[in-house]
Amino acid sequence: MLRIGMLTSGGDCQALNAAMRGVVKGLVSKRDDVEIYGFQDGYKGLIYSNFKMLTSKDFSGILTLGGTILGTSRQPFKLMRVPDKDGIDKVEAMKHTYHKLNLDCLVILGGNGTHKSANMLREEGLNVVTLPKTIDNDLWGTDMTFGFQSAVDIATDTIDKIHTTATSHSRVFIVEVMGHKVGWVTLHAGIAGGADIILLPEMPYDINSVVDAIEKRGKAGKRFTIIAVAEGAISKEDAALSKKELKEKKAKKKYPSVAYELAEKIQEKTDKEVRITVPGHTQRGGSPCAYDRVLATRLGAEASRAILEGDFGCMVGTRNQEIIRVPLSEVAGKLKYVDPKASIIDEAKTIGISFGDE
Amino acid sequence: MLRIGMLTSGGDCQALNAAMRGVVKGLVSKRDDVEIYGFQDGYKGLIYSNFKMLTSKDFSGILTLGGTILGTSRQPFKLMRVPDKDGIDKVEAMKHTYHKLNLDCLVILGGNGTHKSANMLREEGLNVVTLPKTIDNDLWGTDMTFGFQSAVDIATDTIDKIHTTATSHSRVFIVEVMGHKVGWVTLHAGIAGGADIILLPEMPYDINSVVDAIEKRGKAGKRFTIIAVAEGAISKEDAALSKKELKEKKAKKKYPSVAYELAEKIQEKTDKEVRITVPGHTQRGGSPCAYDRVLATRLGAEASRAILEGDFGCMVGTRNQEIIRVPLSEVAGKLKYVDPKASIIDEAKTIGISFGDE
Amino acid sequence: MLRIGMLTSGGDCQALNAAMRGVVKGLVSKRDDVEIYGFQDGYKGLIYSNFKMLTSKDFSGILTLGGTILGTSRQPFKLMRVPDKDGIDKVEAMKHTYHKLNLDCLVILGGNGTHKSANMLREEGLNVVTLPKTIDNDLWGTDMTFGFQSAVDIATDTIDKIHTTATSHSRVFIVEVMGHKVGWVTLHAGIAGGADIILLPEMPYDINSVVDAIEKRGKAGKRFTIIAVAEGAISKEDAALSKKELKEKKAKKKYPSVAYELAEKIQEKTDKEVRITVPGHTQRGGSPCAYDRVLATRLGAEASRAILEGDFGCMVGTRNQEIIRVPLSEVAGKLKYVDPKASIIDEAKTIGISFGDE
Amino acid sequence: MLRIGMLTSGGDCQALNAAMRGVVKGLVSKRDDVEIYGFQDGYKGLIYSNFKMLTSKDFSGILTLGGTILGTSRQPFKLMRVPDKDGIDKVEAMKHTYHKLNLDCLVILGGNGTHKSANMLREEGLNVVTLPKTIDNDLWGTDMTFGFQSAVDIATDTIDKIHTTATSHSRVFIVEVMGHKVGWVTLHAGIAGGADIILLPEMPYDINSVVDAIEKRGKAGKRFTIIAVAEGAISKEDAALSKKELKEKKAKKKYPSVAYELAEKIQEKTDKEVRITVPGHTQRGGSPCAYDRVLATRLGAEASRAILEGDFGCMVGTRNQEIIRVPLSEVAGKLKYVDPKASIIDEAKTIGISFGDE
Repeated sequence: MLRIGMLTSGGDCQALNAAMRGVVKGLVSKRDDVEIYGFQDGYKGLIYSNFKMLTSKDFSGILTLGGTILGTSRQPFKLMRVPDKDGIDKVEAMKHTYHKLNLDCLVILGGNGTHKSANMLREEGLNVVTLPKTIDNDLWGTDMTFGFQSAVDIATDTIDKIHTTATSHSRVFIVEVMGHKVGWVTLHAGIAGGADIILLPEMPYDINSVVDAIEKRGKAGKRFTIIAVAEGAISKEDAALSKKELKEKKAKKKYPSVAYELAEKIQEKTDKEVRITVPGHTQRGGSPCAYDRVLATRLGAEASRAILEGDFGCMVGTRNQEIIRVPLSEVAGKLKYVDPKASIIDEAKTIGISFGDE
Repeated sequence: MLRIGMLTSGGDCQALNAAMRGVVKGLVSKRDDVEIYGFQDGYKGLIYSNFKMLTSKDFSGILTLGGTILGTSRQPFKLMRVPDKDGIDKVEAMKHTYHKLNLDCLVILGGNGTHKSANMLREEGLNVVTLPKTIDNDLWGTDMTFGFQSAVDIATDTIDKIHTTATSHSRVFIVEVMGHKVGWVTLHAGIAGGADIILLPEMPYDINSVVDAIEKRGKAGKRFTIIAVAEGAISKEDAALSKKELKEKKAKKKYPSVAYELAEKIQEKTDKEVRITVPGHTQRGGSPCAYDRVLATRLGAEASRAILEGDFGCMVGTRNQEIIRVPLSEVAGKLKYVDPKASIIDEAKTIGISFGDE
Repeated sequence: MLRIGMLTSGGDCQALNAAMRGVVKGLVSKRDDVEIYGFQDGYKGLIYSNFKMLTSKDFSGILTLGGTILGTSRQPFKLMRVPDKDGIDKVEAMKHTYHKLNLDCLVILGGNGTHKSANMLREEGLNVVTLPKTIDNDLWGTDMTFGFQSAVDIATDTIDKIHTTATSHSRVFIVEVMGHKVGWVTLHAGIAGGADIILLPEMPYDINSVVDAIEKRGKAGKRFTIIAVAEGAISKEDAALSKKELKEKKAKKKYPSVAYELAEKIQEKTDKEVRITVPGHTQRGGSPCAYDRVLATRLGAEASRAILEGDFGCMVGTRNQEIIRVPLSEVAGKLKYVDPKASIIDEAKTIGISFGDE
Repeated sequence: MLRIGMLTSGGDCQALNAAMRGVVKGLVSKRDDVEIYGFQDGYKGLIYSNFKMLTSKDFSGILTLGGTILGTSRQPFKLMRVPDKDGIDKVEAMKHTYHKLNLDCLVILGGNGTHKSANMLREEGLNVVTLPKTIDNDLWGTDMTFGFQSAVDIATDTIDKIHTTATSHSRVFIVEVMGHKVGWVTLHAGIAGGADIILLPEMPYDINSVVDAIEKRGKAGKRFTIIAVAEGAISKEDAALSKKELKEKKAKKKYPSVAYELAEKIQEKTDKEVRITVPGHTQRGGSPCAYDRVLATRLGAEASRAILEGDFGCMVGTRNQEIIRVPLSEVAGKLKYVDPKASIIDEAKTIGISFGDE
């Protein structure tokens, strides 16, 4: 008997179900004696032993389904070692569930925080195989995470829709794109959507440079400017502050999100009308795009092979279009940032996109 | 020679180009001597005699194009009789342009405010034919305006995407839908997207009723609740205030939009996490849906016939799937609201949708 | 106890699930004692008493799901009175199932053939409420069937995609659109997609008129011509033949479908390259569009009210945007054709679309 | 003065305009003195000196536009050295145009055949930079061609739509996917769409193996089977024939396309109903997906840099997510096939997909 526990943790994204389907299809095509324990709502299900027995049938027809059939919740890594309000030691509880159910392996799908916890469980002696899930694409050790391309598609579609309305009015349009502390989704959606200015967390912006870019377009006879700004974007000024100073500054004046702050700054320095669009959670919703389905399926299939080979303690990722296994110990706790010197930035600048950094 | 002036005014929407294409194709298929004067940016182009000479070729290939090739701007009706900052009398200026160019007719595409101004121009003796453009569907005299169904599609898509993420998390999701002071887009997108609660301007809500509906779902084992709220929705409490009282209340506490206010109220009365999504201007962007293209094309074709027949002073609309002409004098200044007693409301309640009004 | 049987028959289409969800939500919101018997694969399930007991939960989350959760099959009306290969009298078998299960009502979703059978069951004394399902929109007694607008969207999208490739090459493109013997989908998708020529079953075409329209475009400097042809389109020549003559003619030369025949005729008379696209079954697939979801939900809700009122023997349809009940006896056996004299045809001709009928 | 000639050749695809926009934006952001000669309809425009002078404005707003603003045509490489019907030597004519216009470089966007001709022009002494355009992804020297991912999206969407109808009926559905002689689009769309069987030109199929896979699904209680077949797929039997034998065999019995042949074979060996869908030219139509827009923009930007550096005779491609330049001499005449031993094939087999090759 092969007993597999499975859970999805952190914010949901597209192709979670596709990836799990890949794992399960891969396992049952080789073994008749697979038992799947689907833990509900991420690590919470593992902690409180809340699970459903699933069969391969439960994973049939979910390739195109958004969200996760297991549910998910956020379980901050830094609180994992902190007992819950009832005094339960979470790590011990998870180990207890694992051993009580006599599991052979845990398949864990998640992003950065999830991987830190997964690595901790590995260190605690559990067999773990993970899959890189996040629209942010900020996981170290893989070229690509699933969810990313689907999120890019949605953010791009948002910019496209704003484009048609922008050509009819003379305005500055700000589209705020998700991505946590990294700029991957914004960079790709910005280029794909034909944004004029792209602001990334990795490249702090100078508001004067942004305003220059807007006015340069005006002088060239363009009616509008579209700015794709990452939710984590930051000005040079703020980037130079200490954490404490920044916190104090933010406490003084609160904005619903970064786009509102940027809009205010632009309106202070120009006479342009500014409009804000925040697609928000839609970026992690809906059916996965074809690219993500292929990626998630391939990753899931490879995860099933790792499990059957007993090769645990790894994240299954992708490098140079091949599927690889990376030791969890190498992945945990590292973020993959956009490199301001990457050639894609150069190429974007070549065609005249401003990053507000000059 | 047939000289036609054309302009699009107010917020842009889908199928403006499709409608203009219909008018022009209809005219040039019957007459060889048509001259089209495309006024830039709405009434502003007419006031300042800012126009381009267009040929039928300019209207070819724009059936699917969002926005308006003429540009648009908002020109509040109430300021039409107020001279501009240079002291120019706008109405006289428009008449001057019309007569100077020796126009036979003005084709004006717009929403409510636009129609008030168009009717005024008619009263001033100009030949005017109008087309009902607005995503809000609030124009009196027509069953449907173009742009509406496209906006419903986009708002529905937003709710769909939120749905997949909602099933993964236990939360209340608020999607704020456009529509100005009426609830048409919210009502249709809410039903189409499977919203659990729909809040419309025409049906002031009781926050306790909303909270009850949320908690009823929780008791029935549902993990999440989706609320589609119109940007113009209002609470019973606020609806009972005088205009002045409401203004004062709003001045005390400002919200970026109605969704934020609603979220705060829900969080005060429940322990649910609330998430807000505001698709905003995307709802008026992108390519028109098939329905709107057919409607706009039909309306445009009929407008061309009205012009060729010399039947001016009318809006071309639709009633019971037929295309009709309605006197501008009847249309101007009237809003078409959702009737709280309409059968569609009944049907929505029948399947368990709450309008927060009980 | 309220016992409801439910079945979907004929070719599937979008919003079948949405409609059934509407019925069930409507019933369970009013009554606690509803039992739903879901018959598998259309009338076949009723004949062979093949069903599943369903609860309201089975109808949750299926609003956006294409296809039908009950399965469907084609059961030609003309064979209903013919015993099956095992000698079973189908009509008696259906009555037997109905009475054995002590059903209060059958909810039947289907198109033309399905309605003939449903009416027969009514005549046999069963309580029947039906819902008009078909992409063809050819059901008499309702302005609109669900599935239609979704099919129009897909066919339009096909023409749109062909358009971009058409502008790059100098060719004639034929897009064959579904619709059985009527031209509704083709007419709407043709207008929405900007087809230059639209050929409908209701308006037999003259190949010389089609060729004239193609050549007229060439002379006007247009690189390409797009023809939307209904799968049931017919030439004037063939329309003049007797049924027998037509059958003999078709036996001599077979084409995969009408588009291939049309292509051959065009190539005989012009030197144009011709390309064929047949979106086929995709037109009935995928998630229903917002319009169909609203329509199907409203129809379903009203069906639930008819059932609760004991008002049987009717189809729930729509007229002038209101939801109505039409006696099945009036609906059965009648097709709703495109009227060649309808104003929409006039409007299409006004903007220069050729129907090949002049 | 920098004089650039530009042309698109072969079948059109998505992101051609995006790529040209990238080139032009890259050039004009560095140089004020760029002249762009846009040759009409591919090499034909170069041969007959048919061109338009374009400015950067012509390349603005075309990022999302399908097709090619320059038009295209097929000019088989093997006929390049054959004089046209008027006796004109095509190669000399192209050189003549190039020198007469005093061009500094030709930018050529195309697929395999196009690259052979481009390399020939290079050998003839012209400065050439090329961009890899084809939905087939069969160009040697680049990991990816633009158009590919967009075509995968469309083919996947087709399979998705068929899926919903498939779950309602008990049938075998064949979806024929484009790709010329290689299986890239079919492989990716097949995995993304959840096809049960994928048939590629690179892996000749055994009809008995295909039938086995269909029947295995039936035994497992699955109602339907979906087959994604490449337009260039071939049976083992036919693959074993000599070119001459195959030609003779094909002359005896003609099928509209490979799907029809496959359907006939399946119906001979099973009693299943088979349905065929051929999305055809739609696969190269419509707006490019975000992925292709980013890729095309990056390639275009890099092409502009190659030109400004005077680094000619290369194709700009992508390898391991970086943009590279590959000598045309290495690219010309080589096809990039799917390797039956590639890990993606393994992964697909791992989750139970049949390639009909066992």
